[in-house]
Amino acid sequence: MSTPPLVDVVVVGAGLSGLTAARRATQLGLTTRVYEAADRVGGRVWSTTVAGVHVDLGGTFVGPGQDRIVALAAEVGVSLYDTYDTGANVVRWRSQVKRYRGTVPPLGAALLDVARIQATIERAARQVPCGRPQDAPGAAALDAQTLGGWLRQQHASRTARDLFDLVSRTTWGCDADHVSLLHVLHYIHLCGGLSSMLDTAGGAQESHFVQGSHEVAVRVAEQLGDAVRTDEPVTRIDWDDDGALVHTDRGSCRARRVVLAVAPTMRRKIRFNPELPAAHEQMAQRWPGGVLSKAYAVYETPFWREQGLSGQGLSDRGPVFITFDASPHQSREGVLLGFVGGPQGRAWDELPEAERRVRALASFADLYGPKALEPIGYIDQKWGADPWTGGGPCAAPSAGAVVPYYSHLATPVGPLHWAGTETADRWSGFMDGAVRAGERAAVEVLRSISTQADSTQADPTTEGAPA
Amino acid sequence: MSTPPLVDVVVVGAGLSGLTAARRATQLGLTTRVYEAADRVGGRVWSTTVAGVHVDLGGTFVGPGQDRIVALAAEVGVSLYDTYDTGANVVRWRSQVKRYRGTVPPLGAALLDVARIQATIERAARQVPCGRPQDAPGAAALDAQTLGGWLRQQHASRTARDLFDLVSRTTWGCDADHVSLLHVLHYIHLCGGLSSMLDTAGGAQESHFVQGSHEVAVRVAEQLGDAVRTDEPVTRIDWDDDGALVHTDRGSCRARRVVLAVAPTMRRKIRFNPELPAAHEQMAQRWPGGVLSKAYAVYETPFWREQGLSGQGLSDRGPVFITFDASPHQSREGVLLGFVGGPQGRAWDELPEAERRVRALASFADLYGPKALEPIGYIDQKWGADPWTGGGPCAAPSAGAVVPYYSHLATPVGPLHWAGTETADRWSGFMDGAVRAGERAAVEVLRSISTQADSTQADPTTEGAPA
Repeated sequence: MSTPPLVDVVVVGAGLSGLTAARRATQLGLTTRVYEAADRVGGRVWSTTVAGVHVDLGGTFVGPGQDRIVALAAEVGVSLYDTYDTGANVVRWRSQVKRYRGTVPPLGAALLDVARIQATIERAARQVPCGRPQDAPGAAALDAQTLGGWLRQQHASRTARDLFDLVSRTTWGCDADHVSLLHVLHYIHLCGGLSSMLDTAGGAQESHFVQGSHEVAVRVAEQLGDAVRTDEPVTRIDWDDDGALVHTDRGSCRARRVVLAVAPTMRRKIRFNPELPAAHEQMAQRWPGGVLSKAYAVYETPFWREQGLSGQGLSDRGPVFITFDASPHQSREGVLLGFVGGPQGRAWDELPEAERRVRALASFADLYGPKALEPIGYIDQKWGADPWTGGGPCAAPSAGAVVPYYSHLATPVGPLHWAGTETADRWSGFMDGAVRAGERAAVEVLRSISTQADSTQADPTTEGAPA
Repeated sequence: MSTPPLVDVVVVGAGLSGLTAARRATQLGLTTRVYEAADRVGGRVWSTTVAGVHVDLGGTFVGPGQDRIVALAAEVGVSLYDTYDTGANVVRWRSQVKRYRGTVPPLGAALLDVARIQATIERAARQVPCGRPQDAPGAAALDAQTLGGWLRQQHASRTARDLFDLVSRTTWGCDADHVSLLHVLHYIHLCGGLSSMLDTAGGAQESHFVQGSHEVAVRVAEQLGDAVRTDEPVTRIDWDDDGALVHTDRGSCRARRVVLAVAPTMRRKIRFNPELPAAHEQMAQRWPGGVLSKAYAVYETPFWREQGLSGQGLSDRGPVFITFDASPHQSREGVLLGFVGGPQGRAWDELPEAERRVRALASFADLYGPKALEPIGYIDQKWGADPWTGGGPCAAPSAGAVVPYYSHLATPVGPLHWAGTETADRWSGFMDGAVRAGERAAVEVLRSISTQADSTQADPTTEGAPA
């Protein structure tokens, strides 16, 4: 058998984070190879075409402050356009349909309570140091609770709890009852606050990509050329302080460093020899991936606009509970994007596609009338059933999993470095966080290789320097 | 290439549950093969010898009502003896050392509060239907909380919270802040109450095995002979409704049914083709393994007995926080067993062995005096670092993971059946639960194969029956 090839960096995972790491590593003069388990690049970013129109099945929106994804997209020639945000939003709540403006729906007296909860959360979020949630005042007590448990303890109204469930499902892919409160506060702080996280204009849903977000990944992968191998899951990594031997079903590759740009829970799909430190493995067991689905209906025109509606809607009935107008740039079709999740979403996920379509369209019709029942195209994507990402939109640690384990998310282990949006120090959970983490990992690898080279050169036992 | 061999049942995992499943399947007339990833059988049951004395590194004790493990042990000739329970227990708490009798230590006025919490828990546990925790009244709200979060909400005293943290660490291998309250209540109900779970005489620590618990596994494996293959991890399982093709690094085996007798979190170490249903995978991401360590010190004699002490102790200092007298049957040596866990335990786990030894012995000396510093043998076992069990003593679902996912723990998927103590309908988390689950899975497989045979025979399209 021939000796496996040697590169400076093997990157595991060709999502935005892994591709960025490989791209930056290449720019820094390092040789790279990228292994992707799925048969496509992009990871939790994926687009397709329905009735001739682009839809983003995964990460979609970008907003102010997300300058790394914006810069990367610009560098590869993918452009942005504003999310349609004209007209009234619409909410279906307790069987009533109402129009409203802004982010917060008109839910009567309950809104006072929502405002109280929101203010409490914002205040608490600012107390959680970015990148060091375990050092927040009272971190253990915050981590011991779920967002949902805390809302009950605050005697939040049913309406406030239901609203935050919708936020939780869209943001973390889980019910408020499933996610550590400390993680929620840290995440919000990394976004710069709830408004920045939830708003369309001025917030994280402000714009999206003309060619689709997946095109960013595709173009970066094209630049990397043969270095990117899809449909080739990494099965085992043998490692020591000097480097690693990375195995796939098709062969092996030696690497001075490895960047694992996969979600925390997916790190467990690889066998490490020697095993990862116990605490790392324990962390990976406690940061599960989210369970969120997206449904797209494509129409001949964005008919809701004629009714003075923005396409932004909210529903307590489901299965679709939040909608956006995701119509293409400079084209006549209209596209509604709906998010599906929570207990209803898990049931919906198990239905056959035809049935999912019927129910998703019924949700759109609840908000936008019977015209919504007659699309020219439909598609959905169940991230909770995606085998190679471990779920989406991102990982959400369970209660108690932040204080003991957060520090292991991104701490290198020998030659193994970690990327993926969960490891980002800003906009963690977003495409921007994925890019930031990839860039950070590439620089980390370069430093580590340089340090090793320096110490090797300075070491008289290996260099045989004169005494 | 030759056709892989065909058996009725492949069992994955040669812990007590898998071995029992294979044994029962064999007794029912089915052919079996057992694949074990580690180089030994037993899984979370393991014994070794220190200074010539048997010590149980994993599952140790059995108590009243645990009749399946007792019956199995009797059938293979492994006998029980009573845990030493004579004399006073000892507690070190807030720097004071005191003697006491019974399960609950003398912690002054705080005891009233402990009793209140205990009664509340017992009452709530009885409301959780065995085997159907998701149907408990208010299940979602109970599941949305951790035990620790709930204790804070009950304004439990610091002492009560600390005591329940010790219970949580020993029982579920995690802090009270990390485990679903609903799971805690269900688990307690499956044990028949807190006393039954925590007591020595009359409870789950009443007796242990003369030859060591591991000997039960070893003897069952011996009976199974060549059917058991150790050091052979299953890497992939291809399956359809008719059966499965089970792959290891060394070859493949066809099976009409597969029993996966591995902890929930370890199910993710195997590639399934087709993938498991999404909800099953989501469950496995949310039921992490425990992080508990055990330290054993062997002495020339059980010197604490001369001081009128039982060897049962409790400490709020750690790293050892609970001790038992695990001295051998009819032999002069004395053995102290100590449990290590929680935040201190995670730090202790990362120390080199010599340092772990020093600190564990210091804990023993805190309770039993300086003689404890001079053992003739010492060993410890870190279950949180064990690669092929995923942790120990058992899996503990995080908050929110019971209501949506409990039903997936044991529900068969095509030809795939599930065992392991977590799937047991009594004494889940104990050796007894492991045996119960293995027996249940074997019967389930037999029924499923019989049903298939019946329907095949009755089906004219395959039998060519006359019209």
